[in-house]
Amino acid sequence: VIGVFDSGVGGLSVLREIRSLLPSADMVYLADQANAPYGERSLDEVRSLAEKAAGHLIERGAGTVVVACNTASAAALQHLRRTHPGTAFVGMEPAVKPAAAATRTGVVGVLATPTTFQAEVLDGLVGRFAEGVEVIPHPCPGWASLIEDHGADTHPEAIAREVMPLVDAGADTLVLACTHYSFVSGRIAEVAGPGVTIVDPALPVARQVARVAEASGSGATTYLTTGDPERLAGQIRHLLGVEAAPEGLST
Amino acid sequence: VIGVFDSGVGGLSVLREIRSLLPSADMVYLADQANAPYGERSLDEVRSLAEKAAGHLIERGAGTVVVACNTASAAALQHLRRTHPGTAFVGMEPAVKPAAAATRTGVVGVLATPTTFQAEVLDGLVGRFAEGVEVIPHPCPGWASLIEDHGADTHPEAIAREVMPLVDAGADTLVLACTHYSFVSGRIAEVAGPGVTIVDPALPVARQVARVAEASGSGATTYLTTGDPERLAGQIRHLLGVEAAPEGLST
Repeated sequence: VIGVFDSGVGGLSVLREIRSLLPSADMVYLADQANAPYGERSLDEVRSLAEKAAGHLIERGAGTVVVACNTASAAALQHLRRTHPGTAFVGMEPAVKPAAAATRTGVVGVLATPTTFQAEVLDGLVGRFAEGVEVIPHPCPGWASLIEDHGADTHPEAIAREVMPLVDAGADTLVLACTHYSFVSGRIAEVAGPGVTIVDPALPVARQVARVAEASGSGATTYLTTGDPERLAGQIRHLLGVEAAPEGLST
Repeated sequence: VIGVFDSGVGGLSVLREIRSLLPSADMVYLADQANAPYGERSLDEVRSLAEKAAGHLIERGAGTVVVACNTASAAALQHLRRTHPGTAFVGMEPAVKPAAAATRTGVVGVLATPTTFQAEVLDGLVGRFAEGVEVIPHPCPGWASLIEDHGADTHPEAIAREVMPLVDAGADTLVLACTHYSFVSGRIAEVAGPGVTIVDPALPVARQVARVAEASGSGATTYLTTGDPERLAGQIRHLLGVEAAPEGLST
């Protein structure tokens, strides 16, 4: 089972891509809408909400948990990996690397929630992947809530208010660093104009989920035989060099 | 859970490769040793044994079942896929394609059990992938049982008896089309000499297993929300264009 959570509907953009890569995977999506939006809460609050959400998904059998929320990833991903060593976590981070590769003006804008920028995860990415590129962090307070309420019909004026300053500063590449924003990427593209590339991480993250999803068990191997369990134990020792305690199966 | 079955220990060669690709997957291995060897039974008998073995693994929670036995794959793979549409099956087939690409003499030997050759799966592969290459099927009666008993210590004379006629016929590439034979691939290489390539499908099959393993659920998506389930249903309809019945979670 693949679990996916977000403060609300933003993670549905990631769920959609995972579903298209893994058509028959069993998935559980949790929208923590009682506590949305995460992006204007403190990092500590978000960490404790993420802990709770991950717990619900693990209870439902998730071996892989996708933190389909940049804010929760920035606040809690390392913490979740430490506290749940048996679960594979995949999180979101600003797609600075592909943006730095795509820009021709050398100016990249990053759209995210205020709390995502507080977590300082962007600084490390810029240092590693965007040398010589100007990366402008731009918080978009209110966007996640607007998209919760209006989805793809969010008013273009609200979009333009945040996007135009980046375009005016010379950005030709915009990183969507909040999963909610994927649902207005068409609007952002309209507002920004044809010379601007929108970098949406939903598909690469889904690919990463597909890669790790099956590697998420306890690593146990159970051996069964319809023959003699002790004989099979000896064969496994001889052939694989491991000790095992096969179970006999009555046939 | 990834289930793997074979008549005996041959499938352990495949299990080993899957384990190295998916270190933390949960796996169940079933050796049908009460009924080994499969390779000298009729196709009908093997089909019914494979059906039983797959049933045991599915009972143990396997969503992916690896038929790590060429004989059972040739006899039953299509049948298993039809009778268990909710399970992903990965089977073995003679690795004619890579062998045809590797041969320089234009002669390829295929080592398998008598029953595997009865299934005629080889003919189709040769027609599709080995045009212009001479492919010599060579049944090795008794090998699987010898390897069950002696593993990698199987006597070189028994190996040479089957391998030398192929080498004498000009084969510079030998396909191991029985998973048991992987455990004597070192012996086969010694007997055949340095000019002969041994094609062992365990690793490519393991890669295939890794690819399909997570895609093996029922394809169900469960939606949960800590907020209002009806609101989330509306959002999912709007954003993803699908009808869903989210569950409310009390927090």
